[in-house]
Amino acid sequence: MSASKVQLDRQGRLRHFLTVEGLSRRHLIEILDTAESLRGVAERRVKKLPTLHGKTVVNLFFEASTRTRTTFELAAKRLSADVITLNIAHSSTVKGETLLDTLQNIEAMQCDMFVVRHQQSGAAEFIARHVKPHIAVLNAGDGRHAHPTQGMLDAFTIRRHKPDFANLQVAIVGDILHSRVARSLIHALNILGVAEIRVVAPRTLLPAAVEGLGVRVFLDPREGLKDVDVVVMLRLQKERMEGALLPTEQEFFQRYGLTEERLALAKPDAIVMHPGPINRGVEIDSRVADGPRSVILEQVTNGIAVRMAIMSITLGNHARPDGEDA
Amino acid sequence: MSASKVQLDRQGRLRHFLTVEGLSRRHLIEILDTAESLRGVAERRVKKLPTLHGKTVVNLFFEASTRTRTTFELAAKRLSADVITLNIAHSSTVKGETLLDTLQNIEAMQCDMFVVRHQQSGAAEFIARHVKPHIAVLNAGDGRHAHPTQGMLDAFTIRRHKPDFANLQVAIVGDILHSRVARSLIHALNILGVAEIRVVAPRTLLPAAVEGLGVRVFLDPREGLKDVDVVVMLRLQKERMEGALLPTEQEFFQRYGLTEERLALAKPDAIVMHPGPINRGVEIDSRVADGPRSVILEQVTNGIAVRMAIMSITLGNHARPDGEDA
Amino acid sequence: MSASKVQLDRQGRLRHFLTVEGLSRRHLIEILDTAESLRGVAERRVKKLPTLHGKTVVNLFFEASTRTRTTFELAAKRLSADVITLNIAHSSTVKGETLLDTLQNIEAMQCDMFVVRHQQSGAAEFIARHVKPHIAVLNAGDGRHAHPTQGMLDAFTIRRHKPDFANLQVAIVGDILHSRVARSLIHALNILGVAEIRVVAPRTLLPAAVEGLGVRVFLDPREGLKDVDVVVMLRLQKERMEGALLPTEQEFFQRYGLTEERLALAKPDAIVMHPGPINRGVEIDSRVADGPRSVILEQVTNGIAVRMAIMSITLGNHARPDGEDA
Repeated sequence: MSASKVQLDRQGRLRHFLTVEGLSRRHLIEILDTAESLRGVAERRVKKLPTLHGKTVVNLFFEASTRTRTTFELAAKRLSADVITLNIAHSSTVKGETLLDTLQNIEAMQCDMFVVRHQQSGAAEFIARHVKPHIAVLNAGDGRHAHPTQGMLDAFTIRRHKPDFANLQVAIVGDILHSRVARSLIHALNILGVAEIRVVAPRTLLPAAVEGLGVRVFLDPREGLKDVDVVVMLRLQKERMEGALLPTEQEFFQRYGLTEERLALAKPDAIVMHPGPINRGVEIDSRVADGPRSVILEQVTNGIAVRMAIMSITLGNHARPDGEDA
Repeated sequence: MSASKVQLDRQGRLRHFLTVEGLSRRHLIEILDTAESLRGVAERRVKKLPTLHGKTVVNLFFEASTRTRTTFELAAKRLSADVITLNIAHSSTVKGETLLDTLQNIEAMQCDMFVVRHQQSGAAEFIARHVKPHIAVLNAGDGRHAHPTQGMLDAFTIRRHKPDFANLQVAIVGDILHSRVARSLIHALNILGVAEIRVVAPRTLLPAAVEGLGVRVFLDPREGLKDVDVVVMLRLQKERMEGALLPTEQEFFQRYGLTEERLALAKPDAIVMHPGPINRGVEIDSRVADGPRSVILEQVTNGIAVRMAIMSITLGNHARPDGEDA
Repeated sequence: MSASKVQLDRQGRLRHFLTVEGLSRRHLIEILDTAESLRGVAERRVKKLPTLHGKTVVNLFFEASTRTRTTFELAAKRLSADVITLNIAHSSTVKGETLLDTLQNIEAMQCDMFVVRHQQSGAAEFIARHVKPHIAVLNAGDGRHAHPTQGMLDAFTIRRHKPDFANLQVAIVGDILHSRVARSLIHALNILGVAEIRVVAPRTLLPAAVEGLGVRVFLDPREGLKDVDVVVMLRLQKERMEGALLPTEQEFFQRYGLTEERLALAKPDAIVMHPGPINRGVEIDSRVADGPRSVILEQVTNGIAVRMAIMSITLGNHARPDGEDA
């Protein structure tokens, strides 16, 4: 049973959110539509809903990430949940406890949701397989595997600007090889029926059988960016680079960095995205990052709504009866 | 005036919770009964009560403990309190402030409860003696002295399974010498009228005048475990060991570790407890820890209810008038 | 445009709180009166108001300060806000992000207030200049420049004891040079019309043109303390001292430390203040710090009310329309 199966209950409803891969269009549309209705909450005077009042959300961060942790914490608090943050990297194995013992202890505290970030691929799925049935597990990034809430917030941002997916061309540019963001986004866009998904990168930053993901490969950005509606720049994952896949950051910028000149190849109304944090002058020029076609900060805003949506949907499904027949 | 007196008001009601020693059976039954009524809260859809709404609980942790801190934080939040956590180990003496100055500053912030964890015995009592009258102090573990909320949650767990204390035999096995948990539990079980409390350990891991605590001493687990109703395994406190009291962990396991064979000496329906975190293969075999007679994770769940009970009772008593006559 | 202008909207209302300098007496009185009405909240059974329910307050601490952070966190929680704390010192630049990018990301999470502490003078103002219009910025201490909420809580504490400012003499004693507290307090007292503000310090601990701040300078405490109504002792900022401005702490205590003898020079009903944390035996003798004329801990209590007031006022002003004509 794969991660995509573990996350569904018998009626095929989302009980965890581990990966976009294997989900149906219906699942993704439910998330996007729920996020759309929640987006307004943050613009109201009282930015809170009672949806998760009395629920406990535990941030289990085995890998430091202030930014992602903060967005999940805000999403949970705006749904009125209580939030506990455990930086396991620093604390858990102090007394030599195994991961499973740590997990079982936390679930014995009657928590309702685990938000898991881990440097190893498959960690969130492993945890989802072992928690008690009443707990929902959200993957907040596992190794190089997936970062599905990021993929969904990217898809949500694209839909707000370019809702006609059947006629859309999206270019994802940069370090595809190390990017769990790219992987999750590619799955999401394919499931949502985006006409063409391009990856634009040097051969050394592409996974081995990348075409199998349902993308067109371009080594040359002059071709890859041509007439696209959306440009998604990826962060050059300096901290994940092992060995010298690239001569220098300067060379990367020269060949692939998104400048105004290069962006001019895309459609005139193309939008520019980036999962952040951006490396100015490495994968993106400041004039583009801060320019009128950048929706990078909008992605951050949308990330709260999308995470609120996924929290509401998964915990809502836990409250419903689960059986062979609906 | 001893710790057991400091924690009572003039009517003999709990105003702090520092130690089980010296409390009456009535005090303990009040805690257990309140915890019983609160245990259901965590199973409701909304796991929250308004009891401490508008109150501020401060976690003062001079000794790191993610697990204990988290259970107190959850207990306070489920009673709707605001929670502030201060890891004093890292912060307080940065600017050369004394402990009393730190305390007086925090109490000047109009907090209502201090949850104190400290590596020195007597620290919580010292703090209770110096805080303003409106503040309740809970001991979350002080040196080798006491861990009274753990003792109470253990007693609570035993009562749920074996309510007939007058006919009960409990064996506490392992590192009695360094265990504040053992000390608190022995006091609780004696006060509650448990028929026989046994300690089972090598001579090097027993306190000098252990019999004075009201226990029977067994060096040989074959005798100590015979026909008991409850086996409480203690964690081998590697981090507290000073000098070579034991040859090796392997030897400890061989002589005292709880295996299925050894557990067979106890009554057929005996339960197995451990305060956690467990050292698998050191004091307990995984088959026993994860087996059908283990209530180790139930202890964690009960810990929230017992801490909620103690918080409610002590703060409730602060709200009542205190005088020579009731 | 100076900090004092940045913090006002077009109607001259406080939209940020960056510095006391340049504010009008009306602004300060509004803060003091609001704090007075909020002071009672902490003495009620339920210490909470719904004022900031649904608002998100972000503590941006670039400089560690458990004490100040805790008072802001408590103030926000007692106004029912959600609070997120980011210790930027440890986290922000992990991935090489610039300060502005970090800020823009946090504001994109639809937060309502930034509480900023930074080791560089002008940091809070810089941030206030760059945030979106709906965000209020509070300065929780920037370099040697200002600590305006501390200045206001000091003024508030003085007013509660000595409301007749027009006939008041206040002596500020010690390390004026490095003290952002002194700077903010001097501005506040001048604006509020205090008759005489004295600074008492060795020449090496006085700023170059200190008289320009509107104070009388005394090198000798025997003259400086004579007949004053209020003595404000400053912390000897050991951690900020660069080079040997003072021979030894002992010498400082001998010449300037507040002893009972020295305090006898002041008016018989003079009060003693200190922003904390105190260095016992360096700038103040324990008998004075703990004596009947000390209001040091009252300052801490008042600090919560004053911060609640400033949070309420600034966010309240953000909710009102801002135009050329009122």
